[in-house]
Amino acid sequence: MENQPTVFSEKHRVTYYEADFTRRMTIAMMLDVIILASEDHSDKLGVGAEFVRQFGVTWVVIQYDVHINRMPVVDENITINTKSKSYNKYFAYREFTIESESGEVLMHMTGLWAAMNYKERKIASIPKETVEPFGAEKVNQVPKMPKPQKVQYNEETKQSFRVRYTDIDSNQHVNNAHYMDWMVNVLPADFLTNHTPTHFLLRYENEVKYGSTVESYYDMEEQEDGSILTKHEIMSGDSHSAIANITWRKND
Amino acid sequence: MENQPTVFSEKHRVTYYEADFTRRMTIAMMLDVIILASEDHSDKLGVGAEFVRQFGVTWVVIQYDVHINRMPVVDENITINTKSKSYNKYFAYREFTIESESGEVLMHMTGLWAAMNYKERKIASIPKETVEPFGAEKVNQVPKMPKPQKVQYNEETKQSFRVRYTDIDSNQHVNNAHYMDWMVNVLPADFLTNHTPTHFLLRYENEVKYGSTVESYYDMEEQEDGSILTKHEIMSGDSHSAIANITWRKND
Repeated sequence: MENQPTVFSEKHRVTYYEADFTRRMTIAMMLDVIILASEDHSDKLGVGAEFVRQFGVTWVVIQYDVHINRMPVVDENITINTKSKSYNKYFAYREFTIESESGEVLMHMTGLWAAMNYKERKIASIPKETVEPFGAEKVNQVPKMPKPQKVQYNEETKQSFRVRYTDIDSNQHVNNAHYMDWMVNVLPADFLTNHTPTHFLLRYENEVKYGSTVESYYDMEEQEDGSILTKHEIMSGDSHSAIANITWRKND
Repeated sequence: MENQPTVFSEKHRVTYYEADFTRRMTIAMMLDVIILASEDHSDKLGVGAEFVRQFGVTWVVIQYDVHINRMPVVDENITINTKSKSYNKYFAYREFTIESESGEVLMHMTGLWAAMNYKERKIASIPKETVEPFGAEKVNQVPKMPKPQKVQYNEETKQSFRVRYTDIDSNQHVNNAHYMDWMVNVLPADFLTNHTPTHFLLRYENEVKYGSTVESYYDMEEQEDGSILTKHEIMSGDSHSAIANITWRKND
């Protein structure tokens, strides 16, 4: 008999400080509330961060694949739904949706996690005790995610960001969502005001450290269907930290 | 008969992304949730931002005076209480507290607001229609707030911050709380890890604009009672943007 994954839901009200100039929630805040839902799901099942640490590992995000029908807006009450779908020896695969009050699906996301040995900082096999309570299915191969296209490095449009003390969250590393802020904030203001994201792929490669300075590169191209593709990379010295592709459409 | 100001309360759960490395809520996030409570209070009484704009003005914060018994921590459920106490021709005076679930007062804040003509960007007299519904008392003189001591400029410890697109919130100006982030993030990491704020005075002078670069200056001195006083100033070119004094004690 196949396992039935448990679904976890929580509500969230979008506030003025979670939104940008256009009154739409920022992508970084959307990732923050999504990760919160997955942590609350784990805590509720008794397999939260502390439980996981007893196996010598900690969860790390490898990649997100996110389809956006509409960004949530200020004062909207959204529901975040999540389930842990499947896992194999090295990867755990999770699904999320964000729904409006009327049940409209605003966002659909899949995400890939791995277990990292927190002493050696290396990928470890996933302890089954940490995933079984979700009703996740053990599989040979978790679904593959498209790989983001590489950026064409342009030294003239890159911007530097110093990793701030307040970028380190209570999970004691640089908040994953902030990479998205470093990527979005290099785009021209009039582009951001007049476009909305419809899809993004985000892949984490190496963690950046507090006190370091990262370089955020991007390039931009028009697609055949008229949408705009921006490709992004965060570099920390010679180290590749994160890579993303974002698709945008012009505001209605 | 004296007016009785209405008290407005709302609950908030502190999340991992609202807290720093020490699992305590950041000062900037604390200001964000406080301002949200005051906006919700205004909206509930039918005198929100849109109502206020019909008089040609918008509220601007002049100063905060904040006493902190303990910073809220991750997963704590806090209650924010606020009332509009009094006003005169040019200033409105508001009080806030943050309480823990057991009713312990974690924070007490007073704040001074003014009405700014949004075309001329100049202080205007406060339309009585915007304050009377709060039950606020009309007075000749609102309570005075202590003025923050000036910083000793030190070119070697100052840091620059570029004002980012995502620093502009849905109220369409640089989120007021971000000034506090620019102030806190120049302090040494080991100081921030080992100290907690007990009091701060924050005074806004001139708004900074998107795309500009601000300089954040600070100096630090030990007080007679063993606490540490840090003095801060944000400069934008030759313009004084904000000034603050923060008192810190060593963590228990």
